[in-house]
Order: sequence, then structure tokens, then C-alpha cells
Amino acid sequence: MIHVGIVGFGTVGTGTARILLENRTVIRERTGLDLNLKKIADLDIKRNRGLRLPKGVLTTKAGELINDPDIQIIVELVGGTTFARDIMLGALKAGKHVVTANKALLATYGGEIFRTAKKHKVDVGFEASVGGGIPIIKVLREGLVANRIQAIYGIINGTTNYILTKMTDEKAEFSEVLKEAQKLGYAEADPTYDIEGTDSAHKLSILASLAYGASYSIKDVYTEGISWISPMDIEFARELGYKLKLLAITKETDGRVELRVHPTMVPEGYLISKVDGVYNAIYVEGDAVGSTLYYGRGAGDMPTGSAVVGDIVDIAKNIACGSTGNALTGSVTVKPKNLMKMDDVISMYYFRFSALDRPGVLSKISGILGKYNISIISVIQKARQIGKAVPLVVLTHLARERDVIKALREINRLPVVAGKAVCIRVEGKETE
Amino acid sequence: MIHVGIVGFGTVGTGTARILLENRTVIRERTGLDLNLKKIADLDIKRNRGLRLPKGVLTTKAGELINDPDIQIIVELVGGTTFARDIMLGALKAGKHVVTANKALLATYGGEIFRTAKKHKVDVGFEASVGGGIPIIKVLREGLVANRIQAIYGIINGTTNYILTKMTDEKAEFSEVLKEAQKLGYAEADPTYDIEGTDSAHKLSILASLAYGASYSIKDVYTEGISWISPMDIEFARELGYKLKLLAITKETDGRVELRVHPTMVPEGYLISKVDGVYNAIYVEGDAVGSTLYYGRGAGDMPTGSAVVGDIVDIAKNIACGSTGNALTGSVTVKPKNLMKMDDVISMYYFRFSALDRPGVLSKISGILGKYNISIISVIQKARQIGKAVPLVVLTHLARERDVIKALREINRLPVVAGKAVCIRVEGKETE
Repeated sequence: MIHVGIVGFGTVGTGTARILLENRTVIRERTGLDLNLKKIADLDIKRNRGLRLPKGVLTTKAGELINDPDIQIIVELVGGTTFARDIMLGALKAGKHVVTANKALLATYGGEIFRTAKKHKVDVGFEASVGGGIPIIKVLREGLVANRIQAIYGIINGTTNYILTKMTDEKAEFSEVLKEAQKLGYAEADPTYDIEGTDSAHKLSILASLAYGASYSIKDVYTEGISWISPMDIEFARELGYKLKLLAITKETDGRVELRVHPTMVPEGYLISKVDGVYNAIYVEGDAVGSTLYYGRGAGDMPTGSAVVGDIVDIAKNIACGSTGNALTGSVTVKPKNLMKMDDVISMYYFRFSALDRPGVLSKISGILGKYNISIISVIQKARQIGKAVPLVVLTHLARERDVIKALREINRLPVVAGKAVCIRVEGKETE
Repeated sequence: MIHVGIVGFGTVGTGTARILLENRTVIRERTGLDLNLKKIADLDIKRNRGLRLPKGVLTTKAGELINDPDIQIIVELVGGTTFARDIMLGALKAGKHVVTANKALLATYGGEIFRTAKKHKVDVGFEASVGGGIPIIKVLREGLVANRIQAIYGIINGTTNYILTKMTDEKAEFSEVLKEAQKLGYAEADPTYDIEGTDSAHKLSILASLAYGASYSIKDVYTEGISWISPMDIEFARELGYKLKLLAITKETDGRVELRVHPTMVPEGYLISKVDGVYNAIYVEGDAVGSTLYYGRGAGDMPTGSAVVGDIVDIAKNIACGSTGNALTGSVTVKPKNLMKMDDVISMYYFRFSALDRPGVLSKISGILGKYNISIISVIQKARQIGKAVPLVVLTHLARERDVIKALREINRLPVVAGKAVCIRVEGKETE
């Protein structure tokens, strides 16, 4: 019998406990491992979570779990980077294996955590930190281990995908949809962490660390959120054959790694463009395997619990086989980061200018774009309102971010252009 | 250093060798494991595979690999169930771990193979047997280990998915598209194994064995192929909001397991309906994780090689940790099969009758359907050609296979009905 303790009895803690209790038999039948949920620590042990727990399981003291010699695996589901870090490091130093869903903690203190685990010869499982129930960490670390990873494109934040899906389906404004998402519990009261892309950036740094064997952190990720997205741009995207998604992107080009999270126009024919609502999907391209995609619920008590318990089983197997101490970052050789500067990134672009409807405006704008080697695939110019500002949409071929920034700065200064240009990056193969 | 031998230097053998040679460094950096491709056995060692092999690697004698004390892992890529079985059992008995892509072998002699492996405390890897490069075996065995699997729906044969996609896009006949697929190398000269659903059935029996812990074989799978599918039915499916796919389906209902492969109409809104061409996808529903989907190339030298090498790495890790002998069927407890008879299966149905265009025909047909508790969702009746046979399409609510068979038998006997009714099962939630 292998004893497990959970610190943090919130949503995911409850899901994890439920699975450990209700699926104990099915897990034992499959693996021969008998997992016993011995302790759960939380400040609030009074609230009814709709779960029948054996007596004596609940405690308010996390230290009890760390000091319990029976408990070999501790699940950290506290969240945040302060108390969670103490629990994590305390458990590792006490020789306990740790399973966590805490992407912020890993993206901030990953180096320290993995070094501590290595020193104490224990395992750290973090499947639940990215993509909820989708076993994407295992896929990258084991399933695709034979591949050089060429690119990862992920929809890895359910809140923003829900909001963008609603904005698309109902042609609604961001602020309206956000309110609705908050009512439904899909967005937090303070939604900043999700809508500004921080959550996606945390997760991306974890995926990239696995894919490229360097220790990337949140600071390495270029991040844009979705709060400035207008339904007008979603509609223009549709006209051009694209869907708007918040993508987390990492690629390796000539030894340099891009790490970026931003609203992205994705061709409607791509499978990832069909991933709607709170669902997540991660597209992974490997040199041998080619294109693959992994889809599922990115959050929630039971899906995330599924990933947590998957990790517990992996570690329990290692314990049973006497082979713990191996489930570390996925890379033995820690490589230099070799970050590509955002300035050097190459992408297709969508621009929306607010231009006065006067002869010669398009020629002026396209002239400036041409000067910076940005060539145009298509233009949409619709409402004719001589003398007034109308939207002028431009889709470009591949261009360099540095040139785009310069060109837009120059265009924004034109007297015939009102306000700042909207700029959204576009993915997909160039088609002519 | 861990030495690997490959038996069978065909398409997948070449891909596997290429990955072992070209990605040796990246695999070592990630895992600390140095994999050395020591021997490749094939009858034909003359043909140029576009690969630079170290001297002395090639041999015509598979026995050399089995008798080589250095080689710990043997990759069986011979195909078929005769010589491949000898190699497999010979290697296991010699204490070698084996990796295979051979679904036919596993679906036919799986029991014997896993018993032999267990007896000799060695591992059998078979990730490459289903879904090419998609790590679906690992997902079921490890990633979703915490879940009771409720259902699996798979597009797991690239040839038939390519044919159905082409038939859909070009409104072309089966036989035409098959010829084209053969020219392109997507279908074999004798395509029976693919187009009659046998390949999918082999793979399904492997997936179901993992999901439900029983030892299912090809004989347990109800199988229909796609050679009788007409573009007319694909077109009617489209009108009704469905795509036609060859699905491999397994579900557990009240302790009984369904295993079936047949053309299936899938709602256009479902992600799996967007999986086109030679791509594969497996939808897995677990009680904790909910809906998940895994997508990628189901065949080809490099994708399948990616899965083979993934298995090699897993086994090499076990060797390095001294924990081999565990990677067996995924279930410790082998449960009874508890098969659901096809007669008892419940599904929605699409029927196309060739009915004389006379008053009262629809009422007669719907009367018979009603008698057998089959109720109608919608009807399409188009071309009016009084006195001639025209297609009459019926989409039903959930009905029981047994009742459907009886009703169709009675309807097929009606004088106003010409020829046998076309019957295609329909998946998706009932919406009314």
C-alpha cells in the first residue's frame, strides 16, 4: 500500500480525492498498486465538498503530512508561489515525492525545485500544470522522446478560449463576454492572470523547457493578452478565412527558441481552429512524428484530478520498482536558453488601420510597408465614407517583427491615419 | 550503452533506424540513455534505403540478433503472424525485450506473447501498433490510468480515411478513389485488409484490452468495411449535418463491452469529423478526464518509427533503473470479456430505401419501423418520379440493432421497395 497526502482541499484537491477514493479498485486492477489517501490538509476542513472521507483524514496542518513517515507522495494543490513553495521544498527535503498542478510555482521556481528533488532523489510530477487532463507532459517527455520538437502551438487557457469563442459566435464585445464568463465561473473575479496571457505564458515556459531542454521561465515569454481584441477584428479574420485564438507558441529555428503568447489568426482549415469553449489543445510538431494534436478539458476538478492521479500512479510505480528519482525536468543535459528576440521573429501579420477615406491613402500605407520589406497578400476596405475614418485591413506575407514595428510607427504618424493600428500575428502556410 | 537490434528493414524499419542514428544525441541529452543500433536483419540487405549505416550492422540472419548477448532490445518489424511470431517468442525466451508495430500479431497471439514476456521478466512495447506516431497506448496505459474508460472512438486506418475523405470532397465512387489511393501508395495492391475494416478491428482489440483489462481479440470485433459505401450516402449525410467515417468503437455499458468497426455518421460539429486524409485520431472518454482526443499520422516510416523509438527509450529506462518486466498488457488483473452482442447494441441509424414513388410508401415504411420501436428524427425524399424507385432517407432516434435487423428484413420484402436498404449507424447526442 502506498500512502498519499494532499495539501490544499479546493477544486482540484476535491477532484483528486474523489478519484483516489472512487477509482481505487480500477487503479489497483490495472497496475497492482494500492493507493491510500491518508491525509488531506486545508485551513478549511469544515466545508462540505460532497465527499465521504474516512475518519481522521482531514487536518489543518500541512506539517502533519510532511512529518508522517507513512506518506511517500505529497500532492501540492495550494496554488500561489509562497506557501506552496514552502510545502514543496519542505516535502522534497523530507524525502517525499511531490505532485503539483502549480504552473506559476514551476515557471518561477522550477530550477530550485528540480535541483532540490534531484538532491533528495525524489520525483516531481507536474502533468496537471498544463492542459488539465490532457497528458501533454507525458507526451512530450516520453511519447515523443525520439523527436526533435520543431514547434508547439497551444490553446492552453480555457478562460480566454471561452471568451474568444463567445465573441466569435455572438459578435459580442470583450467586456460583455468577460462579465458572463465571470458569472458562469469560467473567469475569476480578478481575471488579469488569464486574460493578459500570464497563465498561458507560465504553461508555455514549462512546455518549452521539456521540448528544448533549457530552463525557461515566465520572464522569457513575450506576452500579449486579449482584452484589447475587438469583435470587428474577429469578423475581418473570418472574412479572410481565419479564426482568432490566444496561442502559446514555441519553435526552434536555427538553434534559437521563440517563446510567445499572443492573439493569433489561425486558418479555419486547421484542426486547432475548431477547438472552442473551455477546451484546450496542444499541437506538437516533431521531426519524426510530424503533426500531432492533443485535446481535452484544460481545467476543472476531475480532469485536473485525472492528471494528478496519473502522476501519483507513475511515482507509485517507481516506488514499487525501486526506481524513483528519475522523473525530473525531462532533460538530463540542461542547455543554454538561446532565446530568439521578439524583434527577430518572422510571422504573417494582420493590420487594421483607421484611415481617412481619401484617394492615395492605401498607396501611402502600402508604400511604407514596402519600404520595410512587408508585402501585402490582401486588403479589405469596405464602407465608403468620404472624409471619415474607415477600417482598412491588410494581410501580409511573412515579415520580421522589427520591420513591422518600424513601419507601424511611421504609418501611425500619417495625418490620414486616425489612432493606432491594430496588429495581430497570423499563423499558417503562406498560400498564394 | 544499450544495444538495439531491428528485424525487418522495410518502411518502418528504415524510419526506426534513421531516428536511432540521427536523433541519438538528442535522445541522450534528454534521457541520459545512449542507444546503439547494433544489428539490422532482413532478407534483402542490398537495396539502398538512403541511410548511411555503420559497417557490419546488416545481416540476413535474424537469429544473429537473438543470439547476440549485447543486444537487449529487439524490434520486430517483419509483419504477418508466422515468422514474426517466431521472432517475437524466440526473442522473449532469450530474455530480450521486444518492441513491435505488429497489430495483427498482437490481436491474434497477444495472450501467448504477454504470458511469455511475463514468464521471462521482459518488456513488450507496442506503441506503434495503433495510431502510428500518436502515443495512444501510453495515454491509455499511463496518462489516463486514473480513469474508468467510458468510450473510445477511433479513426485508426489511414487508407480508409483517405478514401472516404476523397469520396466526400470529390463526390467520387469508391472504386475510382481506391485506384487513385493505390497509385499514390496509400492503399495496398490487395486492399482487403484495410478496406474491409480488419486492420481497424485488430487495432481496436488492442485499445479495448488496455481500456477494459480483458484480452480481446479480432474475433470479438463486429466488423464492416467501406467498399459498399456510395457517394450518395455521403451526400445525404452532409445534408443531415454529418460526415461519414470508418470508426472503431468500444464502450462499456453496465459492465458489458461493445467492440465494433463500421462506417459511421458523425456530427459535423465533432472534432473527429474534421480528421481528414491519411490522419488518424482517437477520441477517449474517461470518467474523470471527460472528452479527450489524440491526432496525428497513423502510418509512415518516420511517425511509426517515432512510436517504436519511444518504446525503446521506455524499455531502456527500465533497464537502466533495473525495473524491467512491468510493461505488459497494462492490466494486472485480467478480467472476463463480458462482450455485448451486436444484437443488443443501441445506436441511431441512417437508412436509405430505394422506394417506388407512390402514395402511402412512407407510411408503410414508418409503420414497420414503429412496430419495432424505431422512431424517426427526419426524412429526406427528393426527386419525384412517379412510379419509379427513388431514394428515401430516414434518420432514426436510438434503436436496438436487433429491432433494426427485423424491421429492415420486413421492409426489404415490401413490393414497393426495390433492393436492400442501406443501413449506416449514426453517432452523436440525440438532439430534439
